[in-house]
Amino acid sequence: MARDTRERIVTTARDLVHAATYADVGVDDVCRAAGVNKGSLYHFFPSKQALGLAVLDRNWELMRGLLDEAFDAEAPPLDRLDAFLTAYASMMRTMREHLGATPGCPLGNLAAELSAHEPDMRARIAEVLTAWTDRVASVVRDAQARGDVDPSFDATEAARGVVALVQGYGVLAKADDDPTALDALRPLVRRLLPAPH
Amino acid sequence: MARDTRERIVTTARDLVHAATYADVGVDDVCRAAGVNKGSLYHFFPSKQALGLAVLDRNWELMRGLLDEAFDAEAPPLDRLDAFLTAYASMMRTMREHLGATPGCPLGNLAAELSAHEPDMRARIAEVLTAWTDRVASVVRDAQARGDVDPSFDATEAARGVVALVQGYGVLAKADDDPTALDALRPLVRRLLPAPH
Repeated sequence: MARDTRERIVTTARDLVHAATYADVGVDDVCRAAGVNKGSLYHFFPSKQALGLAVLDRNWELMRGLLDEAFDAEAPPLDRLDAFLTAYASMMRTMREHLGATPGCPLGNLAAELSAHEPDMRARIAEVLTAWTDRVASVVRDAQARGDVDPSFDATEAARGVVALVQGYGVLAKADDDPTALDALRPLVRRLLPAPH
Repeated sequence: MARDTRERIVTTARDLVHAATYADVGVDDVCRAAGVNKGSLYHFFPSKQALGLAVLDRNWELMRGLLDEAFDAEAPPLDRLDAFLTAYASMMRTMREHLGATPGCPLGNLAAELSAHEPDMRARIAEVLTAWTDRVASVVRDAQARGDVDPSFDATEAARGVVALVQGYGVLAKADDDPTALDALRPLVRRLLPAPH
């Protein structure tokens, strides 16, 4: 029951933040939309920042789900990376249908908005982006070991490039309100990870 | 005199937005920091949105200044692109010194935050990003004409990749509060624009 309430608060906050921004969403809005009273919300989240961190963690959990599904598959490394990019684009289309507008990268948005705030937020965002980069770097290393990608590249640098490109395209898709913008990602990511000469 | 006041309001609003987010900055904060009264601010900007658009236009003007300086130089096209990326990284370092924290891409931040809002804002942001992409695409076309970049690539798609990468690295630099993250951009952009086979 308590878990259900906490879950409903996080899910509601997440939807409201995606439909607008973190700053736009007040604790009162979350209470109203989730149908809980303020005491109940503050029981689980003593501050708006605590709720913001829970939304960030939830977004990372969902992104990790996409990464797990794509990266744990039995397929050549670059195909696994393609599968992640396809799943990411498909998530953006689903969110657009649900929210009525293209929300942009769920993690990139929070990074752009919340890094400006409390040091705790920025540190947690940096951690999440590093964890995302590490997942991609491990696929890049697999691809290098198979001879599919130039082994002279630093895998972490290349992975940061991939994560940056995904976030940048999230911004472009949001500005154009067009999730199909993300379809350009796959060939560009391949170009960041060229085969050995 | 009126121009001075308008200018002071826009510059102040811009600094406040960069140090936090658009949503965090109220008209009252701008009045206080700029030393103007509310009537004066509303004389120039009838709404916060109008002021937000002026901040966006100012950021684009400054970015266009960087692009003009780098792109109008007498140098091979890819060197001009490098010069822009160097100037962009240097701007980020200067802003970090001025604001005490790495602000991220001045245009990318507004795109991530404001596209979620009024359609006027989103449309203007999309226009600005298209104008930025067009500038880069023209350099890519010059590089292709000289035989420096594979002519089979669509120059506009490649330029969108470059702009996305710059914005994504803006987010990473902000999350890490480290403007030197942008130094990785030049080699990655080159990899997005490979020489013909």
